[in-house]
Amino acid sequence: MIDGPARFGGRDNVVLAVVLDCADLDRSAAFWCEVLGYHPPATGPGPYRRLLPPGGNGVELLLQQVPEPKDTSKNRLHLDLRVPDLEAEVSRVVAAGARLLTDTPVKEEGWVWHVLTDPDNNEFCILQPPAERLQ
Amino acid sequence: MIDGPARFGGRDNVVLAVVLDCADLDRSAAFWCEVLGYHPPATGPGPYRRLLPPGGNGVELLLQQVPEPKDTSKNRLHLDLRVPDLEAEVSRVVAAGARLLTDTPVKEEGWVWHVLTDPDNNEFCILQPPAERLQ
Repeated sequence: MIDGPARFGGRDNVVLAVVLDCADLDRSAAFWCEVLGYHPPATGPGPYRRLLPPGGNGVELLLQQVPEPKDTSKNRLHLDLRVPDLEAEVSRVVAAGARLLTDTPVKEEGWVWHVLTDPDNNEFCILQPPAERLQ
Repeated sequence: MIDGPARFGGRDNVVLAVVLDCADLDRSAAFWCEVLGYHPPATGPGPYRRLLPPGGNGVELLLQQVPEPKDTSKNRLHLDLRVPDLEAEVSRVVAAGARLLTDTPVKEEGWVWHVLTDPDNNEFCILQPPAERLQ
């Protein structure tokens, strides 16, 4: 068995993590811990920082410091945060350092969302699901 | 509360999902379900396909069909699969359609890994943690 967060997912003995490139580990750790409610991590080793939810019950976000800045192409993998109150969450996350890319929310099939970027210009979305999916 | 997989993570009322761009939903669904042990999903609606682990206990991978192919820049967000037997897992995943980018495994701080791509050239890693982290 592999040490780490709870084994969740489809296969035994496999732990899935999400790795995000950044320029400044402290800055990205502060931002993403605030956004996700994850633990402020211990430092090191090397160019990595493990962000985990309290209790370890959730996917690890591993920050990886890289020398190159993001170019202009859109990330082909991104995080979605699904929340019950879109505008409140967008305000909260912008206050934490996100940049809002969409002037007006995108609407599709009952979903409403905004596109934002983190301090390294990595895109992510905040979405409010259709009313029938909110209990 | 938002409908979806189990609420895991640091905050109540927030569901975290990972969204992956692809050219062919059927092809990517088959590949990633095989790799992750996730459920073969129902189709639709629109250009999306939700992949979930059996029982819903894990992060959703949402496939998103996009018109543009991946360019030559490396994805700045990627998935890590941590496994107890690197070579066996790499062979399995290559047989499922992955392409192996690293001729020899990368070694760092006791970790050993390979870099691969999915059928759309999206990078991901398969890693074997240090021995002391395997129980």
